[in-house]
Amino acid sequence: MRAVDIIARKRDGQELSQDELQYFVHGCTHGDIPDYQAAAWLMAVYLRGMSQRETVDLTSAMAHSGEVLDLSDIAPFVVDKHSTGGVGDKTTLVVAPLVASLGLPVAKMSGRGLGFTGGTVDKLESIPGFSCDLTPAAFRDQLRREGIVVSGQSAGLAPADGKFYGLRDVTATVPSVPLIASSIMSKKIASGANGIVLDVKVGAGSFMKTRADARSLSQMMLSIGRDLDLKMAAVISAMDQPLGCAVGNALEVIEAIETLQRRGPDDFREHCLTVATQMCLMGGQAKDERVALEICRDALDSGRALRAFSRWIQAQGGDCRVVDDPMGSLPQASVVRTVNAPESGWVVGLNAMVVGLTAQHLGAGRAVKGQPVDHAVGVVLHRKIGDVVKAGEPLYTLYTRDEATAAEAERGVTAAYRFDNALVPKPAPILEVLA
Amino acid sequence: MRAVDIIARKRDGQELSQDELQYFVHGCTHGDIPDYQAAAWLMAVYLRGMSQRETVDLTSAMAHSGEVLDLSDIAPFVVDKHSTGGVGDKTTLVVAPLVASLGLPVAKMSGRGLGFTGGTVDKLESIPGFSCDLTPAAFRDQLRREGIVVSGQSAGLAPADGKFYGLRDVTATVPSVPLIASSIMSKKIASGANGIVLDVKVGAGSFMKTRADARSLSQMMLSIGRDLDLKMAAVISAMDQPLGCAVGNALEVIEAIETLQRRGPDDFREHCLTVATQMCLMGGQAKDERVALEICRDALDSGRALRAFSRWIQAQGGDCRVVDDPMGSLPQASVVRTVNAPESGWVVGLNAMVVGLTAQHLGAGRAVKGQPVDHAVGVVLHRKIGDVVKAGEPLYTLYTRDEATAAEAERGVTAAYRFDNALVPKPAPILEVLA
Repeated sequence: MRAVDIIARKRDGQELSQDELQYFVHGCTHGDIPDYQAAAWLMAVYLRGMSQRETVDLTSAMAHSGEVLDLSDIAPFVVDKHSTGGVGDKTTLVVAPLVASLGLPVAKMSGRGLGFTGGTVDKLESIPGFSCDLTPAAFRDQLRREGIVVSGQSAGLAPADGKFYGLRDVTATVPSVPLIASSIMSKKIASGANGIVLDVKVGAGSFMKTRADARSLSQMMLSIGRDLDLKMAAVISAMDQPLGCAVGNALEVIEAIETLQRRGPDDFREHCLTVATQMCLMGGQAKDERVALEICRDALDSGRALRAFSRWIQAQGGDCRVVDDPMGSLPQASVVRTVNAPESGWVVGLNAMVVGLTAQHLGAGRAVKGQPVDHAVGVVLHRKIGDVVKAGEPLYTLYTRDEATAAEAERGVTAAYRFDNALVPKPAPILEVLA
Repeated sequence: MRAVDIIARKRDGQELSQDELQYFVHGCTHGDIPDYQAAAWLMAVYLRGMSQRETVDLTSAMAHSGEVLDLSDIAPFVVDKHSTGGVGDKTTLVVAPLVASLGLPVAKMSGRGLGFTGGTVDKLESIPGFSCDLTPAAFRDQLRREGIVVSGQSAGLAPADGKFYGLRDVTATVPSVPLIASSIMSKKIASGANGIVLDVKVGAGSFMKTRADARSLSQMMLSIGRDLDLKMAAVISAMDQPLGCAVGNALEVIEAIETLQRRGPDDFREHCLTVATQMCLMGGQAKDERVALEICRDALDSGRALRAFSRWIQAQGGDCRVVDDPMGSLPQASVVRTVNAPESGWVVGLNAMVVGLTAQHLGAGRAVKGQPVDHAVGVVLHRKIGDVVKAGEPLYTLYTRDEATAAEAERGVTAAYRFDNALVPKPAPILEVLA
């Protein structure tokens, strides 16, 4: 078998065999196939696509390119979730302790990523002392003791994905359904969960721009997971405007805690409950969706989820005073500037991408890999789509390092808003659940 | 400007600007753009194609990626030819001295290539003492003194092509019209000729399999050359069976000399006259095609072209006794085996690709870059398509290193022949001239 022949077959739109995909993935992982051949193949896959069977085989080959965690000695069923990424997405911080508090073990590895505002790991690391750098052994140990663990992605798991992802980023081959699906699913499979809820975003602030694209990516991932004997569900939600009100690492931790205290924004609460419901259903915590939603709502409203959050933060080394005194324990921005509405009317648009890019420029997210993030900075929105506002009323608050970046960010966030005299309804946070 | 954005634009089928192409070619040549980005871009070009304007700009950027020879101080008009490669193609060995003998300077750089049976340089190097390793200064000097020079490709000319060609070979991006056209034309432009005749082959023994592909490649190269102020013509000919009868380096030198002595095969003679006619026309040696053909025919028949051949061989260090005693001065194969026809009938098929691959296995061509070739080995065909043969009459003669390879080659060449009871006409050697 020769790499160049495999590239040529994919170039010509042919279906690659399981053997060919295993050979290619193995060769790329171990350096036997050079990066330039991998790059040409990735572009051929981007432009020619892959069948579902190929994508399943590619995912499996990538998952098995390194260590594959087996958690079956710890619990019979372990659940995980994955978000395709959006602006203000702090769902894991609420959902993981909520589900764990119901007796369903949650084990999640999360990439640090190149998102607008950092990944889940960055958000958690804004809590003093919290450690996401767990070895596979420590990951297992934390899961066994606490029933909940969230760590950074271990380099030993699915190394083929690390190789491909690095190349895709610089060869313009990121937005491809089979490549995205295999990247996500190979890591999930290697990290050992038995059930996965996909949290798929669609709209301005996510990389899936149309509902059709989001559905097709979701269905591909559901099929891959099911073909590989996982329980799967997908929640498709709108990411036209940010999720919740807080965008920025520590600010999102605060909003997650408020949500666990019944004080969070409605759209974010509903989003968390929908994802948690699907996790509980696949874990067998409830006999149907109605009951599952009820027990999740109860875990949130009773404070049970909040107590699980505190225990979890403490178990991973974090300062759990963050729950009672978030302002006193989380990093603080030097400049806090509340910006008022420039006109009266209904908010009819609030571009998540523009808000996300502004937060990234403030330092909340990375432009290049390895860059540190500033946990303190970001923005809290006081009005979202469907809200009415009077000129001069607070519209949003910026948290920045200095006055200069605040001035620049003000131009950005204000430009993200669109006002009109005619009311628009608040958009439904959830578009569709595929289970 | 970023390489990844240029890759993304080509991936999406957009037209790249002159600036973008110059930036990309310059970056790849100087190592600022890594091979994996070049490879992804090559695959995107392969699958998305390029407009004529893009291909012209790419060619020009590649031609100017290194030294560009200026021969205008030597002669007002210098002519060159380029063959896309075929089996038994020794055209340059006849055409170059023929045209030079008419007072039109010929300057040609030729790749060593990965052809079935070596390139022009390999054929010439089977003549003892003949040197193709000329520096640009020696190349100019030989042209000034003799009016004819053929050398290997100088590494300093069009280095971008060397970079791209090496990558294309291992990334399955060789057979792409804009990439082939820019590769050929960038080297031609850098080597300084004012007029170029393209000798484009189509059929089993060439990489262009259909007449439509050959015409589209030809037209692309004609356009590129004309846009860059060169005089251009293209001769499209059939390569279903080998050109002439000899396949193998020294064997082809002998056939070229025989052709210069009016003893060569008709199809090869006609091919040489057609190419030479176009060169003379663009050089202004004749007022029209009829006259040009007449003076070329006269140069061949009068012995003038043969005398120019002798002078040329001597000037580049070769042993010119080769003309009078080719058997005595060229390397000889250990085993010479004539194979007789297995049946009586008309030859209706003689697969050039099969003959070429057999010659390559004998050692006449390279399987990998840098491999030495055996100048002595090959095959001489005694019957071609349209010939009648009786069972037991000589069909072809093998020239090999040993009996074992002869036995293997016999199976190969015999399998290349197809016989039938119904006569087929001898195919026309020239399909089309685009001038």
